[in-house]
This record gives sequence, C-alpha cells and structure tokens, in this order.
Amino acid sequence: MKHAACFITFEGIDGSGKSTQARRLADALRAEGYDVVLTREPGGSPGAEEIRSLVLEGDPDRWSAETEILLFTAARRDHLERTILPALAQGKVVICDRFADSTRMYQGLSRGDLRGIVDQLHALMIGREPDLTLLIDMDPALGLTRAKARQTSEERFEDFGQALQEQMRRGFLNLANEFSDRFRVIDGGRSPEEVALDVTRIALEHLA
Amino acid sequence: MKHAACFITFEGIDGSGKSTQARRLADALRAEGYDVVLTREPGGSPGAEEIRSLVLEGDPDRWSAETEILLFTAARRDHLERTILPALAQGKVVICDRFADSTRMYQGLSRGDLRGIVDQLHALMIGREPDLTLLIDMDPALGLTRAKARQTSEERFEDFGQALQEQMRRGFLNLANEFSDRFRVIDGGRSPEEVALDVTRIALEHLA
Repeated sequence: MKHAACFITFEGIDGSGKSTQARRLADALRAEGYDVVLTREPGGSPGAEEIRSLVLEGDPDRWSAETEILLFTAARRDHLERTILPALAQGKVVICDRFADSTRMYQGLSRGDLRGIVDQLHALMIGREPDLTLLIDMDPALGLTRAKARQTSEERFEDFGQALQEQMRRGFLNLANEFSDRFRVIDGGRSPEEVALDVTRIALEHLA
Repeated sequence: MKHAACFITFEGIDGSGKSTQARRLADALRAEGYDVVLTREPGGSPGAEEIRSLVLEGDPDRWSAETEILLFTAARRDHLERTILPALAQGKVVICDRFADSTRMYQGLSRGDLRGIVDQLHALMIGREPDLTLLIDMDPALGLTRAKARQTSEERFEDFGQALQEQMRRGFLNLANEFSDRFRVIDGGRSPEEVALDVTRIALEHLA
C-alpha cells in the first residue's frame, strides 16, 4: 500500500460531474495502490450528516444565512476531526466532494458581506485547506441539463436557474484565481472518460 | 402597557433557583404593566430547540468541545434573530434563563483555550450582550441538593460533583467581576421569596 497523506477536493457547479469524477479518481488511485477515503460535504461523518439533515430538510428559509454558515462550519469541524484528519494521519489520500470553497462561493454569491464571515469562521474553527482542489468547469447550460436529470428533493442547492448557474461558474473560477496554488481548472465539457484521464493524471503528478 | 426594551439574563450554578427566579421576575414585571418575553438557552426558538436536542441528546462525547461551541452559537444566533431582537424591537422586556455567560463559564472551565474561541465567535456572530445579568450565587452544597431533587436525563450539564460546582460558582463570580457594568450578584442562599424581592427591586430600578 502506498502512503501519501493528501487532501484532494472536487468543486464545480451542479451537474458538472464532480461527484462522478471524485468516485472515478478514488477507483483509479486504489488501482495504483493508494489507500483512499472518499467523502463528501455537507456531511462526511455521522454527526455532520445529522447537521446536514437539519440544514437541508424543511423550509429553506428556516435558518438565516448566518445560522446556516455556523451549522455548516460545525458540520465541517466534525467531518475534519472524525474523518479527514484521522485518515491523513494514517497516510491515506482523502478525496472530498465539495469543501470550504463551496461555502465561500454559495454564501458570497447570496450576500457580499457573508464571504468575510465565512473566511473568519474558517480561520478560527477549521484552518485546514485542501492540498489540491480540482474544479470541474463547464458551460452551465450543459450542467443544468445533467443536474435536472437526477435531482432529488433534498438537493435544494441545485434548484437554481441558468443565470445563477452562470454566476456560480464565475464564482468558482474567481476562487481558482484567488487560490491558484492549490486549484486546477479542468474542462468538464468533454466525455466523463476524457475528464477522468485529466483528473487522474493531475492527481498522480501531485502525489508523485 | 409600559414599553422598556431591556434584555435581562439569569445565570448561576445548577440548583441555584435561577429558572424559578426568572419566572417570578416575569410575573412581577407583568404585574407592573410590562410586556415580558420569558425565554431560555440553549433553545428559545424552534430552530434553536432543534439544535439543543442535537447537542444534548445521545452520547455526551459525540461532539468535540469546538463543534459543540459552534452548534450552541448557531442556536444562539437563531434565538437572537427570531425571539430576542424582535421582542426588544417591540419594546418588550426579554428575560432569558442562561445566555452567553454560561457558554463562557462552562467551556472555559473544561479547557482554558476555549474561552478565547467562545469570545471570538461571540464577537463575530452574536455581538449582543444583556443589559442586565442577575447572577444567583449560592453555596454549591445547597445547589446540588436542589438540582438532584429535580434532575432529568436531558440535563447532563447538571451531572457534576460538588468540587466542580464550586469551580463553576467561582467561574460565574469571575465573570461578574469581568463584566461588572451589567452583572449584579444576588445571594441565592435565602428563601425564594426573599431572593425574588431583591431580583424584582434590582430589575425595576434598572427599568426606571
């Protein structure tokens, strides 16, 4: 078993295929002999999954943006303590579908002043950034078609129109620019196989 | 109806009689013509009560201290937005059984470095301090006897021995010293009627 403690996150708009690519990368790295933990946010540990349910179920307006950020930060802290850091300490590769960049993008988009709150809470309570963030970038029109095809009632974050999807794409690209040391932007408008080849190559280069 | 937006909190060790005194003060102020909202923490709004259940039910070790502080801060933010601030905006007196001082005391007692985290989170996400805090101070031996007589399974915070109760008393008295502008220390070792007379007199002086 290869040991290479590395924290890799996937980000992207809904329907970009990031969850599929996260799974494919986990399989590819396992085939290469790495010990991989595949996880997701919000959630990723039993406690964080409970908080996820509390936030995502029921009336979307039941929590203010500020309360929601606190709940997501609580879930992330639990996920970090119980799943991510223990796996890294054992030399595993942790692949996470969404992490703090999603919170930065979504909350910053809904109200400008929230990005500062997200960042201050992150600095105080989370601290850890990914070693490598793979942004699956694509045309929102294509992403929306894919997202609608598999939407569940819980996924209210995905219930947005195309104009907003375009803003989100822009928001992620801005983050890629801001954190250019760890972000890699990948063209998600190709076949899943082609995207996966790119993703695996970049990850293996990073691990090498 | 008298209008006097005022935020009054009760603090004290378990069994000190603070909940009884909060109720008595609400009754006394209503009798004087004030519009009073009586509330409590953790909880005090539907969302905050759900978070309270998430924290207080189940294995006491299911959340780390840091995650617990985040969850309590989320509950407090909801309570503040949905219950406390709207009532104050309508010129009501808000009486709250426990508030941020309890978090400062309990978390600071369990680990020294947590007090700083509690304060930074409070400054960032809550901001509001009470106008008047009534600390019902008493000998822990007396408090413990009273607390055991009415303990429920949910009240795990009350499941402490006498030495710890003494540390808590000291912790609250230290806070009263630190925030001497808003704290008033009341001798809770007397009969509930005598304590209530003091509490009502101090509150009416503050409202006048």
